[in-house]
Amino acid sequence: MALLVCVTGRDNSKLMAQLRVHLPGVDIREWPEGGNLAEVEFVLAWNAPDSLWQQLPNLKVVQSFGAGVDGIPLSELPPEVRVCRIVDPALADDMAQYVLGHVLAHKLRLPLYYQQQQQQLWRPKRASGGNRVGIMGLGQLGQVVAKKMQQNNFEVIGWSRSEKTLPGISQFWGAEQLHLFASQCDYLVCLLPLTPQTRGILDNTLFQSMPSHGVIINVARGAHINEADLLHALNTEQIAAATLDVFVQEPVAEEHPFWRHPKITMTPHVAALTSMKTAMAQIVSNMKAMQSNEPLSHCVDTTLGY
Amino acid sequence: MALLVCVTGRDNSKLMAQLRVHLPGVDIREWPEGGNLAEVEFVLAWNAPDSLWQQLPNLKVVQSFGAGVDGIPLSELPPEVRVCRIVDPALADDMAQYVLGHVLAHKLRLPLYYQQQQQQLWRPKRASGGNRVGIMGLGQLGQVVAKKMQQNNFEVIGWSRSEKTLPGISQFWGAEQLHLFASQCDYLVCLLPLTPQTRGILDNTLFQSMPSHGVIINVARGAHINEADLLHALNTEQIAAATLDVFVQEPVAEEHPFWRHPKITMTPHVAALTSMKTAMAQIVSNMKAMQSNEPLSHCVDTTLGY
Repeated sequence: MALLVCVTGRDNSKLMAQLRVHLPGVDIREWPEGGNLAEVEFVLAWNAPDSLWQQLPNLKVVQSFGAGVDGIPLSELPPEVRVCRIVDPALADDMAQYVLGHVLAHKLRLPLYYQQQQQQLWRPKRASGGNRVGIMGLGQLGQVVAKKMQQNNFEVIGWSRSEKTLPGISQFWGAEQLHLFASQCDYLVCLLPLTPQTRGILDNTLFQSMPSHGVIINVARGAHINEADLLHALNTEQIAAATLDVFVQEPVAEEHPFWRHPKITMTPHVAALTSMKTAMAQIVSNMKAMQSNEPLSHCVDTTLGY
Repeated sequence: MALLVCVTGRDNSKLMAQLRVHLPGVDIREWPEGGNLAEVEFVLAWNAPDSLWQQLPNLKVVQSFGAGVDGIPLSELPPEVRVCRIVDPALADDMAQYVLGHVLAHKLRLPLYYQQQQQQLWRPKRASGGNRVGIMGLGQLGQVVAKKMQQNNFEVIGWSRSEKTLPGISQFWGAEQLHLFASQCDYLVCLLPLTPQTRGILDNTLFQSMPSHGVIINVARGAHINEADLLHALNTEQIAAATLDVFVQEPVAEEHPFWRHPKITMTPHVAALTSMKTAMAQIVSNMKAMQSNEPLSHCVDTTLGY
């Protein structure tokens, strides 16, 4: 029995060292030096190559190294494989703080004043009046964000894929209510999981439904947004601005038009960073649970994708 | 008996029209066409010239057209003249929202990411860890700001000129505790009234006491800061950054070094704008109170200056 770490695009030396400390006696391997892959039952994965999954005949558990499982081809895995994600309670607080900070930045016209400062322009303007924040995706993260916004005197409305009711939140659901929801958002915050149903959901038809002063805040996944449609919506004044923390390709290529767009604020995928300490505790706990046939934590429904 | 409006540097046509609607029968004049100044008992003032005050032998009331009275030479007025200011409850909420938004902007490293976006740089960094906000001046405005910051999980400490205790706030006072206070501020927010004692209080010795990651947020008056000392403190890394809404000279001259300083965020005196409706109600009420010998509202102690 072996644990394979297939986490690409980062330096894993600290991760490997900590796993070996916390799981003494476990055969821990790091991709691409996987040895005999028939021995691998547990994979810790992030941005793993698609070709990996067919090479693991005895796979039992895939542990995502983050809050999302969108890098894992759920429909191609055997049905008995369980897929788990990291749930970091501090991550929801960080996310809420990011959303509040960036909504306030737009309300207080920071992007405008940053640009005016570059040009030595003194043009006072009242803070913008809109106070309604629409949240797409009201899972654990979305609910913490909603509460934080309400505590700061914003009105929160919500949209989710299936029917849901939450206290104090006007709730919309399903494709047929999406555009009615969007039409009422001064700020539209995307916190959806990335699934085939939500990929590209922020597209031209949605932007057309929004008020022209509307602001998009995407802290979920880059692929939720149709990037060409967003540029078109900003350039034709269908919406006013966007703050993006996530992108289809990360890091964003130097020639990408988002960098220099005056209505786009970019941050480099920092809205909520899982702490190594929290991640390590959950990986170790799930590995031990698998070994002793006990229930795993934070499994996703592989047919729904979250 | 006449009311003289001496509000300079703005278009007063709407103000004059509204005063005439709300005070029918009152002789309302607009400086510099004041007529016989011996008839003037009530002055509505903002940025009035110093030469005005000696020309008003029968002055009874000076009503400031803003929250501050620092443009009015209190010590030169006869002791029986009462000086009032505008108190706008919405103004405290706006101020609190501005302070929260700009503290979060620094915590979430927005100025850094705005600059990196200009350079197409992708450099993720965790949000900064400091959570302690020091507020100088804990009057009505300061207390509303303190509460807002506490509600958003910041630790608040305070400094005031004279001894003061407020629930949930570690409080410092007097010149001898100023530097101990400053040494503990991750964010230092200036909300003091401008008096001879507080002019230039944010100076080299104060900046030297602060931690090197400390951030200054000035939403009081430009003259609270020694501008040359601030530039020196930023350039020698005594402190990390400053957000300034107020300046010694407004609008700020095009050649002023603040505009292009990478560690300074400037906004054009917009943190809290008094609404015309609120101001009008208080001016009218005080004018009528003076006419009928009733108590005036929102008078300042002319010896303290606030």
